[in-house]
Amino acid sequence: MSLTSYRLSDLADKLGVQLILKDGAEDIVINGMNTLEEAGPSELSFLSNPKYAKQLSGTHAGAVIVRAEHAGEVERALVADEPYPVFARALTFFASPQGSFKGISHMSCIDPSAELGEGCTVYPFAYIGPHAVLGKNCVVFPGCYIGENCRIGDGCTLYPNAVLMAGTMLGDSCILQPGAVLGGDGFGFVRTEGGISKIPQIGHVEVGSDVEIGSNAAIDRAALSATVVGDGTRIDNLVQIGHNVRLGKNCLIVSQVGIAGSTHVGDNVTMAGQVGVSGHLNIGSNTTIGPQSGVAKDIAEGKVVSGSPVMEYNSYLRLVTLIPKIPELFKRVARLEKDLGHTPIPAVKTDSSLLTVWNRWMSKMHRK
Amino acid sequence: MSLTSYRLSDLADKLGVQLILKDGAEDIVINGMNTLEEAGPSELSFLSNPKYAKQLSGTHAGAVIVRAEHAGEVERALVADEPYPVFARALTFFASPQGSFKGISHMSCIDPSAELGEGCTVYPFAYIGPHAVLGKNCVVFPGCYIGENCRIGDGCTLYPNAVLMAGTMLGDSCILQPGAVLGGDGFGFVRTEGGISKIPQIGHVEVGSDVEIGSNAAIDRAALSATVVGDGTRIDNLVQIGHNVRLGKNCLIVSQVGIAGSTHVGDNVTMAGQVGVSGHLNIGSNTTIGPQSGVAKDIAEGKVVSGSPVMEYNSYLRLVTLIPKIPELFKRVARLEKDLGHTPIPAVKTDSSLLTVWNRWMSKMHRK
Amino acid sequence: MSLTSYRLSDLADKLGVQLILKDGAEDIVINGMNTLEEAGPSELSFLSNPKYAKQLSGTHAGAVIVRAEHAGEVERALVADEPYPVFARALTFFASPQGSFKGISHMSCIDPSAELGEGCTVYPFAYIGPHAVLGKNCVVFPGCYIGENCRIGDGCTLYPNAVLMAGTMLGDSCILQPGAVLGGDGFGFVRTEGGISKIPQIGHVEVGSDVEIGSNAAIDRAALSATVVGDGTRIDNLVQIGHNVRLGKNCLIVSQVGIAGSTHVGDNVTMAGQVGVSGHLNIGSNTTIGPQSGVAKDIAEGKVVSGSPVMEYNSYLRLVTLIPKIPELFKRVARLEKDLGHTPIPAVKTDSSLLTVWNRWMSKMHRK
Repeated sequence: MSLTSYRLSDLADKLGVQLILKDGAEDIVINGMNTLEEAGPSELSFLSNPKYAKQLSGTHAGAVIVRAEHAGEVERALVADEPYPVFARALTFFASPQGSFKGISHMSCIDPSAELGEGCTVYPFAYIGPHAVLGKNCVVFPGCYIGENCRIGDGCTLYPNAVLMAGTMLGDSCILQPGAVLGGDGFGFVRTEGGISKIPQIGHVEVGSDVEIGSNAAIDRAALSATVVGDGTRIDNLVQIGHNVRLGKNCLIVSQVGIAGSTHVGDNVTMAGQVGVSGHLNIGSNTTIGPQSGVAKDIAEGKVVSGSPVMEYNSYLRLVTLIPKIPELFKRVARLEKDLGHTPIPAVKTDSSLLTVWNRWMSKMHRK
Repeated sequence: MSLTSYRLSDLADKLGVQLILKDGAEDIVINGMNTLEEAGPSELSFLSNPKYAKQLSGTHAGAVIVRAEHAGEVERALVADEPYPVFARALTFFASPQGSFKGISHMSCIDPSAELGEGCTVYPFAYIGPHAVLGKNCVVFPGCYIGENCRIGDGCTLYPNAVLMAGTMLGDSCILQPGAVLGGDGFGFVRTEGGISKIPQIGHVEVGSDVEIGSNAAIDRAALSATVVGDGTRIDNLVQIGHNVRLGKNCLIVSQVGIAGSTHVGDNVTMAGQVGVSGHLNIGSNTTIGPQSGVAKDIAEGKVVSGSPVMEYNSYLRLVTLIPKIPELFKRVARLEKDLGHTPIPAVKTDSSLLTVWNRWMSKMHRK
Repeated sequence: MSLTSYRLSDLADKLGVQLILKDGAEDIVINGMNTLEEAGPSELSFLSNPKYAKQLSGTHAGAVIVRAEHAGEVERALVADEPYPVFARALTFFASPQGSFKGISHMSCIDPSAELGEGCTVYPFAYIGPHAVLGKNCVVFPGCYIGENCRIGDGCTLYPNAVLMAGTMLGDSCILQPGAVLGGDGFGFVRTEGGISKIPQIGHVEVGSDVEIGSNAAIDRAALSATVVGDGTRIDNLVQIGHNVRLGKNCLIVSQVGIAGSTHVGDNVTMAGQVGVSGHLNIGSNTTIGPQSGVAKDIAEGKVVSGSPVMEYNSYLRLVTLIPKIPELFKRVARLEKDLGHTPIPAVKTDSSLLTVWNRWMSKMHRK
């Protein structure tokens, strides 16, 4: 969708790599980037994994970033020792920013006591509350809400309908994807004789620099003090971060993860999709947690774990290989018992009530 | 809540079914539809599953869609061979559309370069960016954002706060439930020496016709090229679709499913709630995946699978029946070992640290 | 972030507790509350769990709510038999409301047929549709959408971008966190010869009093009749409630739970994070369901269950302790078989295709 274009020779210069043209091939205009399979004659592609080298012969790409040994296989080659980082750098030239509006829209609503740094853009229908402070060159898209006393650094982008409740702090160069909510009330309730009482949540959310928060993710304000997200941490879509959680630096928190209140997570932690972490735990730095895992205990630094509840990665892999063999194991044990003359244990019947639910679900959802 | 009403005899005509009135019963005005248990005297109900035939005697419904053999059991019967499809068709007469505003609100913001087809409605506080193109009879509710270069077909409805980032394409007759986000950045990052680098995401989202996307669901733009949702596919609330995923036609993707990047899904696939699918996989057409399943491998066409990791549905049902018996199996094996004079293996104690977390959770959450 | 402040002696009066000053300590101004570890000299803290009593000596808190036996350990003590409820009550004095705007903004859009009670606040960019009725003292933040015929009680707060589709009913004193969606269409579809047909959803959502709905949560309108949330029930962020679900009173539904259509849940039920519940089930009152559980069968009143599928809490704890020992159990059974001269069963190899996916994921996500 990019409307940007460059001469291929200029791109080579910008990227600091050599351009090799096959006999008769000419310099061309490049207006986008794509995979080898899908690139057209005015698009730039790349070959990073040599496993896919055979795709070079069939590609329609106008030019390809390759290692030297593959330069002869395409019309126009940009030669790099490591194609992938060059490819990633090239992408930045074609990544046209979302939205082209500049300035402060008269259809926005900005409290007179708010302070905006130089070069800020505020779209129509954005709301900025009393005493909020934005640094330079921030962009606030339509439907965003910035509550009172928020403090936002330089170069932050709030995509449409992102919400910062009162007192939220962002460092520099943060990106909030659409619908992300920072500073909603934490889930603090106590069951009492008369029902359930709400514990007022009076803390806030503090986010470092270079942080990205995914679409429709939710990070709750602290009960007291702050919920913290460290510099360089990236949070994917639909993730839930509970009150008083502290996330370290450079973590990758993949989609639909949920982290319950007051858990502390170290630096460089990776959590795969749909992980759940209980409250009040310590997750050491440099840990990696596999998809759909359930964490109910502290994890020591540097561990790679998976499963619900989690165990070491190698144990998990061995376990999930054996789990489908469990029905067979029951039969093997029954046979041993028979050999030893134990009273036979009646075979377990498949749980029919579960079966009923499944069948109901199947008949509803399955293709008829 | 419907304010629509019809004479019962007119409804019968519209539906092409026979109206049978018991002696003395008169034609009435019907102003809504409901279940046999909850319907009132001016509501229409239905009996689809003969299992519930005994509810006919107690219903207060003004009229009931039934098979011929049950026509005598109610005051006013609409007779159909298959009551359910007739019921579903009747619903369309009572389904009043959300919102009654018509035309282009002067409180919306539409870039002069955007093109809107005939009969479009744009509510206050909706934003339509440069070069966006909408077909005929689209409805854009308050708080929606349509980024530049979006292409939207005829008859699409965007409910409040739905977001289409730049370059998103929708076919005809699509429905976006409130807060759905299409085209947010994919989660593309590389860990480097200095921390984490963002891979610019320059692709877009391409959605076919007759597609519905649920409330607060998120479909990411592709890194390169397109994230694709095929014609007729329906996606439920809070679903996450990663960058470069390709969903086929007529899939049902139930609530809170997450599909990681670059996975290709065939046609007529059903995924139940909370399923997680890893990236770069192929899920064959006509497959059905049970609730909370975890998919880490390709699935062949037509399979019905469940579990985390998934296995065949029948194996899964057998397995989950046996899993509660595993503690007993450990005892049985210990007894066999004792019989054969093996060194006894000490009994496994319940993991006390897990117990602590559980008890803490219980004391916090359980009813006091 | 609170700007509120009180003299400590006045706070003691308001809370009805005794203030004890150490020799030489003076009454001070308190402007916030915090944990013992983080509180500063003008903040109030508390000691509820005697386990943390040693923190009293190191705290910088200006004053602490303690039991009588600890009063001598701090400069300024507020003495209470049960410090926690006093602490919770004190929080309400420091919980400044989000947003200070009052009145009806001329930048909002309110249909002339809507009725608003006394003392309502409507922020800019909020939309209130035809025939909607709001009680007294409601606050509607920017980006909220209230569809036609909605009925909202007294003292409700709708935080930014909350959505109530047509016909939604709220009792008194409800709180909708940002981005919560009530009344989006239920996921009602039927697979037919020609593809998939939508079942029109003509019901609505009915919420009692003192209900809180979390950020970006989704509660679908009923197919027919109503989806119901009982008085006092609190629903956390990113929760999915399907069409025609009925939730009882005083339930706590923690983040990312999903409840499928037509399931009925009793009173005082607690569901921990990421629980999934199938459709058409009955969950008894006073049940507690552990994190990440999968519920596919009815649950009787008062049960405490966990696992996927769920089992009794004690069985679950025993089971998850044994699960990591399953690979060892396979070896033990093989050894018994060898002793009894059974044909040896070949050792199971770790599933290499799963390994491949894992390794690919690890190499992508793990710290390099």
